[in-house]
Amino acid sequence: MNKNHATSVGGTKSHRIFLLLKDAILSGRLPAGSKLPGENKLAEQHGVSRVTVRRAMEALRETGLVDRRPGLGTVVLEQPLDATVMTASVSNLLPNMVKMSQASRVRLLEFCYVKPPESVRESLGLRDGERVQRSTRVRMADDKPFSYLVTHVPEHIALHYNEADLASMPLFALLERSGVLVDHASQTISATLASHDVATALDVSVGSPLIALTRVVYDQEGRGVEHLDALYRPDRYRIQIDLNRTGDEEARYWEPMPPAARQARRKRSRKA
Amino acid sequence: MNKNHATSVGGTKSHRIFLLLKDAILSGRLPAGSKLPGENKLAEQHGVSRVTVRRAMEALRETGLVDRRPGLGTVVLEQPLDATVMTASVSNLLPNMVKMSQASRVRLLEFCYVKPPESVRESLGLRDGERVQRSTRVRMADDKPFSYLVTHVPEHIALHYNEADLASMPLFALLERSGVLVDHASQTISATLASHDVATALDVSVGSPLIALTRVVYDQEGRGVEHLDALYRPDRYRIQIDLNRTGDEEARYWEPMPPAARQARRKRSRKA
Repeated sequence: MNKNHATSVGGTKSHRIFLLLKDAILSGRLPAGSKLPGENKLAEQHGVSRVTVRRAMEALRETGLVDRRPGLGTVVLEQPLDATVMTASVSNLLPNMVKMSQASRVRLLEFCYVKPPESVRESLGLRDGERVQRSTRVRMADDKPFSYLVTHVPEHIALHYNEADLASMPLFALLERSGVLVDHASQTISATLASHDVATALDVSVGSPLIALTRVVYDQEGRGVEHLDALYRPDRYRIQIDLNRTGDEEARYWEPMPPAARQARRKRSRKA
Repeated sequence: MNKNHATSVGGTKSHRIFLLLKDAILSGRLPAGSKLPGENKLAEQHGVSRVTVRRAMEALRETGLVDRRPGLGTVVLEQPLDATVMTASVSNLLPNMVKMSQASRVRLLEFCYVKPPESVRESLGLRDGERVQRSTRVRMADDKPFSYLVTHVPEHIALHYNEADLASMPLFALLERSGVLVDHASQTISATLASHDVATALDVSVGSPLIALTRVVYDQEGRGVEHLDALYRPDRYRIQIDLNRTGDEEARYWEPMPPAARQARRKRSRKA
């Protein structure tokens, strides 16, 4: 059962409504057992005809997201657990990626040397004219794609490894093998829509929501050694951040929890 | 100049292409000065006619995102800086929210007592039949909405404050005023599409990408005291996480950087 009409244009009104309702179901806003709004209400809300709404409902039924019964309306079905959501914790994001890469497979879509886009050149602190190696990879787990990764690495570092290395080892390990002393990283998390190429690679509809993460990694001298633009399917990957409240009365603040403490905490919470 | 066709259905093919290209521009994937693909290429990629593509291009021009010159094609324009992007750092996410709330304004859309959805009941650890207070708020900066917040708080805590309190004070401050000893929190970051109601409240098109954050806050006994579903406009809000690489050779890991260290580091990086 494939829930994605991969790379379909998503241009019709009924497909738009299908995408919105699918997103609401997969994100848990419409949980299993809940009833969708009536056709009339949806038609009014979206300024479309009932026929258009009915077509969207039919597409939801065909993809196994809802059941439709005369007189009972449209009810959200329990989703099978095979769509496992991976979670990455922030404090060990990169080690996780290494572990993950042992269990997951990579498709290398592109490997080339180019003049970097201005924003990448600036954030890596490169001089005008310095080239970078650009690679585009899709990471899969259980043969299902979950992330689309575009990386830029300064040429003098990237020359230490080749295409075959990148198709089989995580970039982070290759950087360290190249003698780079990784020191700190800056990350920004945002959201975006799947463009045509990305939708094809990640097997989602054009216009689907994606988690967007940009990371710049620096060495001990403060030089940029890697620029990553990562896009994640939210139904297969999420970012998890657990925090502790610490500090004294006057200056209380939040501190990220290390993974071990988190597990102990979970058990305590469950018992409580 | 309003870049958002608020609450328009987004149902036509040209509007879909407009949304995708707008997202690529506002996210920086198509930077100022870069040229959009030609009409033929876009038409082919999306399986639509050139007329449809031209309509999308025209909408981009009208909203001030691109310039179109005969013979030169469609070029992305520099975006005015008034669309300031707020960034929240993870380690001080809540204190930031408190500071932010002093500079920002809140619209309280809903305040009521309800039976919680099953997922909220479970994550707050409530007994069957226990009610919660649900509130829906929109936070604005410079009179522009940037976040849509739905919170659920167990009734016995929520009875300590009223609608007027919530319209003027951050929920977190109200919890502490109510005698709750906040201890730890669990957060998950994802991405979603703007539904009809959310799009209206945040002044974006239906189907626009949004950052989705779910947070559950616990007290010292491990009891859930707040469940938050937050949606953020990615063009006005981003989540920033800076990390340090620490530990010895065999077990290196990433540790979130406190804000002070981060600033010092930035200065060092700039000098390098």
